[in-house]
Amino acid sequence: MKFTVSEIAQMLDGTIVGNEKITIDSAAKIEEGRPGCISFLANSKYEPYIYTTQSSAVIVSKDFVPKKEISATLIYVENAYTAFTILLEEYQKRIANGKSGIEQPSFIGENSQVGENCYRGAFSYIGKNCVIGDSVKIYPNTYLGDNIEIGDNSIIHPGVRIYDNTIIGRNCVIFANTVIGGDGFGFAPQADGTYKTIPQLGNVIIEDDVSVGSNSTIDCATMGSTIIRKGVKIDNLVQIAHNVEIGKNTVIAAQSGISGSTTVGEQCVVAGQVGIVGHITIANKTKIGAQSGLGKSIKKEGLSLSGSPARDLNEHLRSMALVRRLPEIEERLKDLENKHETSDFQGQ
Amino acid sequence: MKFTVSEIAQMLDGTIVGNEKITIDSAAKIEEGRPGCISFLANSKYEPYIYTTQSSAVIVSKDFVPKKEISATLIYVENAYTAFTILLEEYQKRIANGKSGIEQPSFIGENSQVGENCYRGAFSYIGKNCVIGDSVKIYPNTYLGDNIEIGDNSIIHPGVRIYDNTIIGRNCVIFANTVIGGDGFGFAPQADGTYKTIPQLGNVIIEDDVSVGSNSTIDCATMGSTIIRKGVKIDNLVQIAHNVEIGKNTVIAAQSGISGSTTVGEQCVVAGQVGIVGHITIANKTKIGAQSGLGKSIKKEGLSLSGSPARDLNEHLRSMALVRRLPEIEERLKDLENKHETSDFQGQ
Amino acid sequence: MKFTVSEIAQMLDGTIVGNEKITIDSAAKIEEGRPGCISFLANSKYEPYIYTTQSSAVIVSKDFVPKKEISATLIYVENAYTAFTILLEEYQKRIANGKSGIEQPSFIGENSQVGENCYRGAFSYIGKNCVIGDSVKIYPNTYLGDNIEIGDNSIIHPGVRIYDNTIIGRNCVIFANTVIGGDGFGFAPQADGTYKTIPQLGNVIIEDDVSVGSNSTIDCATMGSTIIRKGVKIDNLVQIAHNVEIGKNTVIAAQSGISGSTTVGEQCVVAGQVGIVGHITIANKTKIGAQSGLGKSIKKEGLSLSGSPARDLNEHLRSMALVRRLPEIEERLKDLENKHETSDFQGQ
Repeated sequence: MKFTVSEIAQMLDGTIVGNEKITIDSAAKIEEGRPGCISFLANSKYEPYIYTTQSSAVIVSKDFVPKKEISATLIYVENAYTAFTILLEEYQKRIANGKSGIEQPSFIGENSQVGENCYRGAFSYIGKNCVIGDSVKIYPNTYLGDNIEIGDNSIIHPGVRIYDNTIIGRNCVIFANTVIGGDGFGFAPQADGTYKTIPQLGNVIIEDDVSVGSNSTIDCATMGSTIIRKGVKIDNLVQIAHNVEIGKNTVIAAQSGISGSTTVGEQCVVAGQVGIVGHITIANKTKIGAQSGLGKSIKKEGLSLSGSPARDLNEHLRSMALVRRLPEIEERLKDLENKHETSDFQGQ
Repeated sequence: MKFTVSEIAQMLDGTIVGNEKITIDSAAKIEEGRPGCISFLANSKYEPYIYTTQSSAVIVSKDFVPKKEISATLIYVENAYTAFTILLEEYQKRIANGKSGIEQPSFIGENSQVGENCYRGAFSYIGKNCVIGDSVKIYPNTYLGDNIEIGDNSIIHPGVRIYDNTIIGRNCVIFANTVIGGDGFGFAPQADGTYKTIPQLGNVIIEDDVSVGSNSTIDCATMGSTIIRKGVKIDNLVQIAHNVEIGKNTVIAAQSGISGSTTVGEQCVVAGQVGIVGHITIANKTKIGAQSGLGKSIKKEGLSLSGSPARDLNEHLRSMALVRRLPEIEERLKDLENKHETSDFQGQ
Repeated sequence: MKFTVSEIAQMLDGTIVGNEKITIDSAAKIEEGRPGCISFLANSKYEPYIYTTQSSAVIVSKDFVPKKEISATLIYVENAYTAFTILLEEYQKRIANGKSGIEQPSFIGENSQVGENCYRGAFSYIGKNCVIGDSVKIYPNTYLGDNIEIGDNSIIHPGVRIYDNTIIGRNCVIFANTVIGGDGFGFAPQADGTYKTIPQLGNVIIEDDVSVGSNSTIDCATMGSTIIRKGVKIDNLVQIAHNVEIGKNTVIAAQSGISGSTTVGEQCVVAGQVGIVGHITIANKTKIGAQSGLGKSIKKEGLSLSGSPARDLNEHLRSMALVRRLPEIEERLKDLENKHETSDFQGQ
């Protein structure tokens, strides 16, 4: 697929400086560009590359003033990064193979309805009483149990497993091999040391515009629902336990885990490999640093936390700096103790 | 499915106070109840809700004495929590769809035997020489290699992968996309910097009553067997390396990992995101706190450990409290140093 | 499958002391041996077992001098461990079932080519325009998208998902349920608190001789390629984010995660549950201890790092030892303070 610089500038509402007839067939980072590529410059750290890039065109923000000659054609826009993103989306849309139709063999249970313009890949399995919206893509080798609802335009990637009674909204993307609605981890200890399984009768509700990465797990509620609110973005290998609720537009990076019955607020940012205990509530806009362990509810909005146990980011950094300096601190303590012994001795 | 309070009380060997003819069609937490629901009160923290709950009935322990009027019908039992669990199990049993039979297409290799009353979902694959017990459920899109044994009543959820020679006991549940018997991570470094694969010729043995969550991995032994003993409960995204042995009734929470050749005792509790090094032995009833890193064998039974490296929980908490106070501790040290300088100066 | 000691000695270029006609049908650890088994002794810690082992034969290094009588036949070789590994490989090769052919039903899209002597399991899916080399094994229930290349002798285990445009070299092994080429986790925050998906248009390139464990995830690049160089070994449940590059012969243990755009050098060793931030560069031969969190580029080769944040291993151990001793350190500080107060008092 090819575009001229002129077509791209029109798409982005941009102004061209240079040759508007150049043809673009790919995108690249400014430092890795080749002829035929388009790049962008948003971070001034990368400005040196614009004078040497091999890319045919570069998208720049309207306030960019070149300090040297540039061989690439420039497209001036309001915000270079946003414009580049829009361009990539457009590109992706056009190259998207727009799969639809039913590949065979595939399985669908009784009373299940599938909307218009859907894709059902080979070896995909849909149970009974499911309601699948329009333009939904169900890739090969996926499993959907019974009584499942999936909203319009959602994409279920290969190998995803969705248990009975799950509800998924519109425009959601669930990446490969993620499991939604498996039993919560609930066992009641018995007098003889064994554990009795606590039935997990609830479900998972995922609202619109949610993205879940690959190989993640979202357990069903014991009773009621595990809820992922509108616009939440979850990365790979993330664990969401039973009865958790994740607030709107919260982002959770890879390998983090949230224990049972915890409520995470809206617009929170949870970095990678974070652990959050069960039965707590986290205020909106909380930011939790990588590898942190959060053990208590956070009531105030907008805090940045770090460490295990997690606390105020700056306090954590100060303590960690002193942990690094502990050998020196102990030396100083020894010095004082020696002086004391000497002075005690002198005092005798 | 509906029950009357009277039927439920009979099931639980309980005593009714209130209207015994009310119909129950669902279960709910006491604070989220609606008419038609049954709830329970086991933790006195939740007692205030019993006076306001919308649930039609509440299961309470025999020693519960109301402080105010309660509109819900009460069912008095020996232990409210246990009774509620029994009720949910009964409920689950009755709503369970009791899948059986063979969906097509599915694959079964030569010499494999499947017991009575089994379910084999569409796109499930069973290799050669397998022995599958009675009432086993093998969900769609699963893979079983060759020479596998699975005991009666076990459930293999969608997308589970079981490698050759694995033995699984009775009443086990393996949740979706878990992998059992993949090669252990064994590579011998060579002089030229490359690694040579060490063949992994052993298998995995899972005894009766074991539950393994979704997207977990249990590697086969290099030689001999990786062994999961009777009654072990493993959560999602857990890693069990080659030649590990997990003792009876031990519980392992999500995202924990146990390295090669380590033996974990019976009735241990491993919290979430714990890491355990290889080649160590952990005594029975050891409790390991979330995100801990255990690097040494534990010989004494019943210890509670935490931290990375893990040690006695109370000592860890004391140290962590002091880490938080390090800025203050350094201040105090500075004060003393200043006083000394002053007094040294004065002494001149 | 059976071998005589004589055949084994020949295979390993070894010298026999004892009965060379004994038949071997299995391998076992020296402490778990049974008649018919062969074991090895490489670590002197295990020497006591050689005098009591039930194994029929033991491979020992050429400098081993028995201190007591040994009933097993000994095979002297240059390096006992290496020789044992060679033997196991040979054993594995011979018992390998050498799957080939096509099981039905399986799916292959238009324009895809599959080389000679390949295996395509039941319910496996290959998209369009793929090029699969010779002797490649594609196990059941796998998914390969479009435009994928896989080199000769590579093995794709059950449930693996490979997204469009991925390139995999020769002699690679991808274990069950691993996902290669899913979208990188890229979202641009919008003024209204929502996130816009940044299209992920790049791919994943995996060079020759790479092994990837079960349930791991390797994301495609935003633009360009996520690259896993020749000879890299990756364990289970590992996360490799978009645009990461892993250098030749680097080893990454289970549950570690590497964030976007980070470059890891050659021959590094990353232990389990390590987290590495994005956009950094790690020098060759860096060793990173279990559960460490690496937040900065490492420029010097060959360092051993540990802790979160990670730093020099020895410094980390020293600080951790002092953290454990913090209660004592604070006591000593208090003592000094008390003495001061007393002396201040006396000085009045």
